[in-house]
Amino acid sequence: MRINVINPNTSNSMTDTIAAAARSVASPGTQIIATNPSDGPASIESHFDEAVCSVALLEQVMAGEHAGMDAYVIACFGDPGLLAAREIARAPVLGIAEAAMHVASMIATRFSIVTTLDRTKIISRHLVRNYGMEHHCARIRATGIEVLELETNTDAVFRSILAECQQARDEDDIGAIVLGCGGMAHLVDELQQQLGLPVIDGVVAAVKLAEALVGLGLNTSKAGDLDYPSAKHYRGKFAHFSPPRR
Amino acid sequence: MRINVINPNTSNSMTDTIAAAARSVASPGTQIIATNPSDGPASIESHFDEAVCSVALLEQVMAGEHAGMDAYVIACFGDPGLLAAREIARAPVLGIAEAAMHVASMIATRFSIVTTLDRTKIISRHLVRNYGMEHHCARIRATGIEVLELETNTDAVFRSILAECQQARDEDDIGAIVLGCGGMAHLVDELQQQLGLPVIDGVVAAVKLAEALVGLGLNTSKAGDLDYPSAKHYRGKFAHFSPPRR
Amino acid sequence: MRINVINPNTSNSMTDTIAAAARSVASPGTQIIATNPSDGPASIESHFDEAVCSVALLEQVMAGEHAGMDAYVIACFGDPGLLAAREIARAPVLGIAEAAMHVASMIATRFSIVTTLDRTKIISRHLVRNYGMEHHCARIRATGIEVLELETNTDAVFRSILAECQQARDEDDIGAIVLGCGGMAHLVDELQQQLGLPVIDGVVAAVKLAEALVGLGLNTSKAGDLDYPSAKHYRGKFAHFSPPRR
Amino acid sequence: MRINVINPNTSNSMTDTIAAAARSVASPGTQIIATNPSDGPASIESHFDEAVCSVALLEQVMAGEHAGMDAYVIACFGDPGLLAAREIARAPVLGIAEAAMHVASMIATRFSIVTTLDRTKIISRHLVRNYGMEHHCARIRATGIEVLELETNTDAVFRSILAECQQARDEDDIGAIVLGCGGMAHLVDELQQQLGLPVIDGVVAAVKLAEALVGLGLNTSKAGDLDYPSAKHYRGKFAHFSPPRR
Amino acid sequence: MRINVINPNTSNSMTDTIAAAARSVASPGTQIIATNPSDGPASIESHFDEAVCSVALLEQVMAGEHAGMDAYVIACFGDPGLLAAREIARAPVLGIAEAAMHVASMIATRFSIVTTLDRTKIISRHLVRNYGMEHHCARIRATGIEVLELETNTDAVFRSILAECQQARDEDDIGAIVLGCGGMAHLVDELQQQLGLPVIDGVVAAVKLAEALVGLGLNTSKAGDLDYPSAKHYRGKFAHFSPPRR
Amino acid sequence: MRINVINPNTSNSMTDTIAAAARSVASPGTQIIATNPSDGPASIESHFDEAVCSVALLEQVMAGEHAGMDAYVIACFGDPGLLAAREIARAPVLGIAEAAMHVASMIATRFSIVTTLDRTKIISRHLVRNYGMEHHCARIRATGIEVLELETNTDAVFRSILAECQQARDEDDIGAIVLGCGGMAHLVDELQQQLGLPVIDGVVAAVKLAEALVGLGLNTSKAGDLDYPSAKHYRGKFAHFSPPRR
Repeated sequence: MRINVINPNTSNSMTDTIAAAARSVASPGTQIIATNPSDGPASIESHFDEAVCSVALLEQVMAGEHAGMDAYVIACFGDPGLLAAREIARAPVLGIAEAAMHVASMIATRFSIVTTLDRTKIISRHLVRNYGMEHHCARIRATGIEVLELETNTDAVFRSILAECQQARDEDDIGAIVLGCGGMAHLVDELQQQLGLPVIDGVVAAVKLAEALVGLGLNTSKAGDLDYPSAKHYRGKFAHFSPPRR
Repeated sequence: MRINVINPNTSNSMTDTIAAAARSVASPGTQIIATNPSDGPASIESHFDEAVCSVALLEQVMAGEHAGMDAYVIACFGDPGLLAAREIARAPVLGIAEAAMHVASMIATRFSIVTTLDRTKIISRHLVRNYGMEHHCARIRATGIEVLELETNTDAVFRSILAECQQARDEDDIGAIVLGCGGMAHLVDELQQQLGLPVIDGVVAAVKLAEALVGLGLNTSKAGDLDYPSAKHYRGKFAHFSPPRR
Repeated sequence: MRINVINPNTSNSMTDTIAAAARSVASPGTQIIATNPSDGPASIESHFDEAVCSVALLEQVMAGEHAGMDAYVIACFGDPGLLAAREIARAPVLGIAEAAMHVASMIATRFSIVTTLDRTKIISRHLVRNYGMEHHCARIRATGIEVLELETNTDAVFRSILAECQQARDEDDIGAIVLGCGGMAHLVDELQQQLGLPVIDGVVAAVKLAEALVGLGLNTSKAGDLDYPSAKHYRGKFAHFSPPRR
Repeated sequence: MRINVINPNTSNSMTDTIAAAARSVASPGTQIIATNPSDGPASIESHFDEAVCSVALLEQVMAGEHAGMDAYVIACFGDPGLLAAREIARAPVLGIAEAAMHVASMIATRFSIVTTLDRTKIISRHLVRNYGMEHHCARIRATGIEVLELETNTDAVFRSILAECQQARDEDDIGAIVLGCGGMAHLVDELQQQLGLPVIDGVVAAVKLAEALVGLGLNTSKAGDLDYPSAKHYRGKFAHFSPPRR
Repeated sequence: MRINVINPNTSNSMTDTIAAAARSVASPGTQIIATNPSDGPASIESHFDEAVCSVALLEQVMAGEHAGMDAYVIACFGDPGLLAAREIARAPVLGIAEAAMHVASMIATRFSIVTTLDRTKIISRHLVRNYGMEHHCARIRATGIEVLELETNTDAVFRSILAECQQARDEDDIGAIVLGCGGMAHLVDELQQQLGLPVIDGVVAAVKLAEALVGLGLNTSKAGDLDYPSAKHYRGKFAHFSPPRR
Repeated sequence: MRINVINPNTSNSMTDTIAAAARSVASPGTQIIATNPSDGPASIESHFDEAVCSVALLEQVMAGEHAGMDAYVIACFGDPGLLAAREIARAPVLGIAEAAMHVASMIATRFSIVTTLDRTKIISRHLVRNYGMEHHCARIRATGIEVLELETNTDAVFRSILAECQQARDEDDIGAIVLGCGGMAHLVDELQQQLGLPVIDGVVAAVKLAEALVGLGLNTSKAGDLDYPSAKHYRGKFAHFSPPRR
């Protein structure tokens, strides 16, 4: 089983962090193919970044389909391009926000999300609604940390995230914490140990859910609205999306 | 990894059906322990049946904890006793309705549920709300089939379920169908082949999600409201629930 | 008119408290039959306690039907077994949480619930949603008091509850307070006097709503999903639930 | 106990129908004072009619407060002026739509509303939302009957309402029917007999709920937003609303 | 184009404030006809005030229809009588709360409302739900200022409103503030300058939306439930509402 | 005032249709600048098409900001890239689905959407939820017409759309119809005439709302989450998005 874990930003070091996390939970027969586009933003912290990264992400999924990947993980907490990716993929596609929230709802009645910049909270809010998690998600909390700081400023970053998680644990009436950025994947164990409650990273959650879907023999449904997009002419710098697409 | 798949009714033949389905998807290292209580209703088709079966189900979970099970699946589509089971279990516990709906939402934007008796629709309605699936579940459909008929009257039953599923596929604007009874687990392949869209049985879905949770090292959160119930005196025929419970 | 007020825990002294409250509001022609099972938990503070108490509660309702009771009140704020009880009863059945919230919504636009242990808040949350009270219930507040303490540690308990109610009154933008435990029934008058806003206990509310339903000649609807459960074989220690059930 | 049942339209004959229904369920000690304004519309079938009738209705409540009424029932299914009436009343005030829906939710999991003209459905829709009944109300059905026809064209009217109720019973997956007009109060028994499921009229439901609230010693909360309106100058034809108002 | 801006209270000075605001944004070809009834409350701060003011407001709309107005603005933040006014008007009718919230949702993902007395918050809450703004409106805040104080006690009032707006800006995670009273229209510019985020007054918002609707050639739909009310006899002091009404 | 109406697909003829509609309602002082990207899909009928078109759309908005546009209209009914566009624009940005639904809710209590392909209904469903229109939108109907057919197969297309609109009018209990594609803008008048109820096209609605926002002096809020994206390095074919961006 080959799972293509796609970091939709262009930071190779973050892809390495994500790959390490993914591999740490992969089953023996599972191969993690961690990739990131070479086109696009260094980090994803706005609707604009999400919109731009989605195109290169979709190119990666298309390449993955040619290579016969068995599943995809979109390793950015905004789950950018998720439904578009499902349209062009036969294989199942999972977002890490989606995966983390679903998993959290199975081991706790309520959870809080601890994420990066304040402005990304609106993205989480929309996902919480789209995934039907309004009654499971107690609160969305921002730490004010930029995504790329997660790679560099490790100690201060850890203390900030820990402090916000502690507040969540003590004030939000919750049983678990969901980390709101793929770049936090390496912090889970230490956070969990210090906090004394489950801390859920979406990268590992999505890898295991992807294995589960593949194990069930389930692909993205091509009956209905996730069917392959109808072939049509794409012009200019997107002409490569013209048919034949599959 | 040992997963205790508990059929909460007392029909051994249905337990066999469920066990076969569970084993058909279990990973190499996973052992399926399929059990059912010897006390309680032969089938579960009402709130009353659910209430009565829950006690014996909880006894099975308590026995499972003593035996060191790694996860539990409650193999009845009403997910009876789910939160109570989580309270007394360290290991993760999954309901098959919960599992089926979560999985369906990952491969299709919308699904319909095809279940047994009309009166059980209210149970599914409540679960759809509790799991935040109101925008994913297009419709809940009953076939008028009693649970125990699933074991006996195979041909007519299959045709009825197929007919209802066809209506769902053609009228409900959906990408997948969720089967609303653990006793339908053996019908999935044939239904899927004839319908041409994914058909999701909760038993297999729950087994794979249970493996995923165990693979993530996640247990039921004991921080917050799923903590072990506080010890107290139980009287009369429930005195065995008095402490020490663990 | 005979109303069977069932305390679903096994604490006789709490049944006495509840009975006294019920009788204090009963109309001249109404007889309060206060009972509690001899099997089950001494108090109900978790999903687990709820699940176990439900069986003995349902036995009481079945006995009540044989005795020709005119209505039932389930005198525990989690309304355990409510829909199951309605299935097996011709007479109307009311939960005290249900009754208190409905009554509160008729005299105030918003109310807060003040309950016992933190872990029971999730139970109230689910009820608030099930009863459609999300826009009427401003907040659910726990006092950290165990149910059985309500019987023993009277002064300190009263001060704790009063303090939490005062916070609710001053911070929650509400017009009424709902008490979240049947065992608080005797505190209403004193709380109301000190707080200066309506305080609603579910026991008395349910008794008066039960009288209202009986006065309207209404029984639990046997058309649709609250019809008597279909007869079926119950095995082992629950064999007494086998037909003939009515 | 004196309950002022206010028919907010100016049709005396409809007030008589309503009064008869109210008295048929009133407890021995309860006196029904049925009134209607002499100013306003002959029937209430639009937002406009509701707006105009509200003023005269409020005058009746103010007169009732002077006369020391113990409770009020607003006997029009749109519950016009309900919150305004609560503001100016110490005694509890109940709308018949509110009462009927709350009662229906206690004896069935779902109900349908059968009302008069198509255009009034929007009024019911808003009430269903305001009272949190979205998950209890399966469908709102109009018969196309004008309110005043209910008084005159009895046979044809009964057959139309019965036909619509039969459709509701057979198609809506419900356990009870709520009648959507105070002027249908006299049809309940015959409808119920022919339909075989509970049919709920709001007039009688509201009378019994009013008795319940009075029996509980509860008044409209004057803490918070249902407090008496602050005194202020009213000019022109509404100058009589200027202080002193109480 | 003639827009009838109706202040539904009887305070002429507030009408002047509102008229000035309306004219400050009106397009060259737009004439603002600012009116207020001579019957009714001096200010509107309760459901009761709303109910009484609605009748005189509707008379103004009827007069406006005779005079051939092109659109109406109801210049009170509770949008009293909005649907009733739409029923009797061919021309479009806008409420200022409605207009302000819709506009706010187009330039920010979330806003808070800053209004007058605490007791009016329930009115805003209902509007937020009716207009589908639950996910856009972060919080409703009261200043404790009476409506008529807005006209007199200018400096203290401005400081109070500014202080509450600052709290909203700093605590509510919002991008805009909606002012919750037509009488605050003249404060917008100064508030916006001091706060550094968009402050939206409903009066000017409604005038521009009214121009937009007229420019689109759209009138209130007379297909369906906003059709003219059916003609019927009105008695007593409301006899002038009897047909012919148009 | 210059409004940049951006057709996000690459079909120039559709841009002409849209431009003509926009100009037909523009106020005297308003200049309509109708553009479309030269890169991207010929039509937008899937999440995939939406994702790809968004990048070129955002480039157009960035160019528009350099050129000092006063407002933007995204002329595709899925409102692709709306929040991302708002982030990079000082001027207000409106989507045509957003505009049409808001306008419809001001002249009718309920509307239906009539759109193109079945698979696009999920896009409308999400927008209906995001804009809080769940209680205003009665139903979303597809005609099975491809977007580009709107330009070519005029007669048959008109008859199909008319037929679906007639069904909506007769079955959906609505007061208005919203057209679900920018390419239907030229059909409004004829449809409205034949249907006898308001038919709302988002292109013209958005132009007038854009004029309204500009007339109010309102820009996209830069306080909070619609602030300009933080500057960062974009690599490869998206390097032109690197700072300085404004």
